[in-house]
Amino acid sequence: MPDPDMSDPELLAWRCAEAMLAEDEASRAAGVTIDDVGPGRATVCMRVGETMINGHSLCHGGYVFLLADTAFALACNSGGEVTVAQACDVVFVAPARLDDVLIADAVERLRYGRNGICDVTVRRAGGEVIAEFRGRSRGLGRPLLD
Amino acid sequence: MPDPDMSDPELLAWRCAEAMLAEDEASRAAGVTIDDVGPGRATVCMRVGETMINGHSLCHGGYVFLLADTAFALACNSGGEVTVAQACDVVFVAPARLDDVLIADAVERLRYGRNGICDVTVRRAGGEVIAEFRGRSRGLGRPLLD
Amino acid sequence: MPDPDMSDPELLAWRCAEAMLAEDEASRAAGVTIDDVGPGRATVCMRVGETMINGHSLCHGGYVFLLADTAFALACNSGGEVTVAQACDVVFVAPARLDDVLIADAVERLRYGRNGICDVTVRRAGGEVIAEFRGRSRGLGRPLLD
Amino acid sequence: MPDPDMSDPELLAWRCAEAMLAEDEASRAAGVTIDDVGPGRATVCMRVGETMINGHSLCHGGYVFLLADTAFALACNSGGEVTVAQACDVVFVAPARLDDVLIADAVERLRYGRNGICDVTVRRAGGEVIAEFRGRSRGLGRPLLD
Repeated sequence: MPDPDMSDPELLAWRCAEAMLAEDEASRAAGVTIDDVGPGRATVCMRVGETMINGHSLCHGGYVFLLADTAFALACNSGGEVTVAQACDVVFVAPARLDDVLIADAVERLRYGRNGICDVTVRRAGGEVIAEFRGRSRGLGRPLLD
Repeated sequence: MPDPDMSDPELLAWRCAEAMLAEDEASRAAGVTIDDVGPGRATVCMRVGETMINGHSLCHGGYVFLLADTAFALACNSGGEVTVAQACDVVFVAPARLDDVLIADAVERLRYGRNGICDVTVRRAGGEVIAEFRGRSRGLGRPLLD
Repeated sequence: MPDPDMSDPELLAWRCAEAMLAEDEASRAAGVTIDDVGPGRATVCMRVGETMINGHSLCHGGYVFLLADTAFALACNSGGEVTVAQACDVVFVAPARLDDVLIADAVERLRYGRNGICDVTVRRAGGEVIAEFRGRSRGLGRPLLD
Repeated sequence: MPDPDMSDPELLAWRCAEAMLAEDEASRAAGVTIDDVGPGRATVCMRVGETMINGHSLCHGGYVFLLADTAFALACNSGGEVTVAQACDVVFVAPARLDDVLIADAVERLRYGRNGICDVTVRRAGGEVIAEFRGRSRGLGRPLLD
């Protein structure tokens, strides 16, 4: 008997996100948590910790990217197909600092064939934009959940 | 009396790199080490650890980016001016896995005004390309070293 | 006496767009026309002509880019400050062909300092997406209109 | 009997480039000519004409892009497989003006599977860099020549 939940795209997105984050040591070690997720979208957040600071005393671009990339991954895997990043670009708009709480909002902009384009905005809690990220994804044709 | 070392671009690049990495908690916590550095170039490496693995059991794109971004930062700060990332793009060519040693080679391609373009190739030790990264930098007009 | 029109952002955007396109031999020679313009947005269209076809019998990427770039220019100059492109990226989603009418919708996503980020979607009339473009702009601090 | 020329990569690259440009109305109408071509590389040039000028009295970004994109196309089709652009990004380094002769040098950086990355530098004759372009290509698995 098919799992009735799979026909609800909101619930499917949550189950995919939880399954992915459960295995995602990198995001968990960085303290990334899910605020919201749905079909083609995800919102995650992270506090900038001491081991995320770079040589200019700002949050290392790698961690801003990691947060955005995790939001991107949850958004583009939300339909239940294993989907990976092909390429990403990020514009650094303003620096983030120690103890800032960063929120990344990912929204899929387009799907075409196996490809997708997803826009992610990273904000400091309170609203200032920290970075604008665009990711391109490719589906692998395999189911994410068993 | 001016420091005579500052007239040697190779030595200046090393001193800038060491000063930056000494403050860069993010790169140090990730185990990034400097292989080589010089005017407009830097080579750094990192082993993929357990806390760098994502929900597809591969190295999280955030850590591939972090390594490339650190190489980029060392290369574009190698002349002694505080220089920050404006924007970066990365193409993920092949996945990296647990315990892979990754090497990022950064070479400045162009300087114009306060702006620069820097290309970084991330390889697995042994040679396979993992990612191609291009960063755009902007100098802030302040000296990096005291 | 100050021109009262300049306090109306919609009218200012139209006057800037018309002034720019009047001088833009490239867009006019390509048959680009303005469908709509407003503060931080512009919609332009163009028919794919015989001199826009490439070696694969498709619309040359240069003309898809030209159309998107013109929409971007009108959107980011719509506030009356001379603003130029720093960098752009384009994803080619589907090919365009001879006689297709292409419509480019530009929307500024963000302004920060003198910089801006503008997203442009190019569609075939009827709706299929042809390309997704993102441009980064920089204002030069000079007025566009006399 | 197999054509013996096809085993010479330099000659194959020329034959592919000539075949492509013969059909490429867009490049020919813009006056693009081939300076050199070889396996994974191409150099093309173009004079900035009156119908290439934008609303700021500079060469329209669309024509700088067109020139770079043509060099990219010749380089990535030089092995004889029909290969198309997936995505491109361009950084505008300096403006080009009426009657400038622009030279675009394309070099393939990497091939992986059906994908490729190609870097193109556009210079004014004499040497100043006008733009840095990076294109991503995808082979379609069909021969370019009969």
